[in-house]
Amino acid sequence: MKTVGSEIVWQGRSWRFRVDELEADSGERISKGFIEHPGAVVLVPLREGADGPEIVMLRQYRLALDETILELPAGTRGWEEDWLDCAQRELREETGFRAASLRFLAQFWPSPGVSNELMRLYLATELQPDPLPGDVDEEIELQPLPLADLLMMAQDGRLQDAKSIIGILQTAVFLNTP
Amino acid sequence: MKTVGSEIVWQGRSWRFRVDELEADSGERISKGFIEHPGAVVLVPLREGADGPEIVMLRQYRLALDETILELPAGTRGWEEDWLDCAQRELREETGFRAASLRFLAQFWPSPGVSNELMRLYLATELQPDPLPGDVDEEIELQPLPLADLLMMAQDGRLQDAKSIIGILQTAVFLNTP
Repeated sequence: MKTVGSEIVWQGRSWRFRVDELEADSGERISKGFIEHPGAVVLVPLREGADGPEIVMLRQYRLALDETILELPAGTRGWEEDWLDCAQRELREETGFRAASLRFLAQFWPSPGVSNELMRLYLATELQPDPLPGDVDEEIELQPLPLADLLMMAQDGRLQDAKSIIGILQTAVFLNTP
Repeated sequence: MKTVGSEIVWQGRSWRFRVDELEADSGERISKGFIEHPGAVVLVPLREGADGPEIVMLRQYRLALDETILELPAGTRGWEEDWLDCAQRELREETGFRAASLRFLAQFWPSPGVSNELMRLYLATELQPDPLPGDVDEEIELQPLPLADLLMMAQDGRLQDAKSIIGILQTAVFLNTP
């Protein structure tokens, strides 16, 4: 396939939508749509709870699904924003906490077929209240849950958000590693 | 937020891109883009290899990343297509095998912030050669790997495709469950 055309069809606040025109060796043409994305951070805010380690999860309304889902705090990076600055900002906006320690755990592509978004996952610990105002379009409620429960939910299918499944499993692996 | 406008901006072969105009209580307006998606299947083609259980992985060129990545076979469902029919079709197109057994393992949203895509994960076993021609725009090479190696790659960050990390981890959990 060779690319014979490329156009930005929509430019949003944080990412843009591009359509490419492709031509096969046979001469057949298809058009393919992509999201051009600056990347996003995913946070695992970890603290000691009454029943052992717990994670500050969110319940967030998602317009694309028209559903409120359980997920880890996360957010889109500014095109030029430093990854750690972005992680701290999103943590403060979405949970109201600042982390004295942010440790990189893993990175992954959530949808490489349609987007170049790269997600970088950080373990956030030593949390202290230090909120920032959130985005106007976000409807978020905090829901701290024990890591042990979340691990079960990631494995039995009750947790259905991909970044959160990966975040919980990677955290469990990390905490068992000396 | 209330929706004050909605428009399909691009219609591709398998999914479409929609932009909504939203208005906050304050009167502030923002526009948000979404992918309207029929869903996709992810396959874990499992067979007995020389060194224990192995998974038929793919190396696939991804235009969005301009990179060839290691991933599980997967593909978009037709809007009216039965999920199991889709799973068998994609397995045959991408690996050249038919599975006598397809078992549902889990489902998840890869990108709920920008897409309503739901991925359904199937364990594909009892594989027999029965190829179907693939899509014109796909560049795919088979790469069978031991499950034990893939599990390490999912945990240490060498596997960076979200659906594949989840598929490998869920398969490992399932196989350890009596």
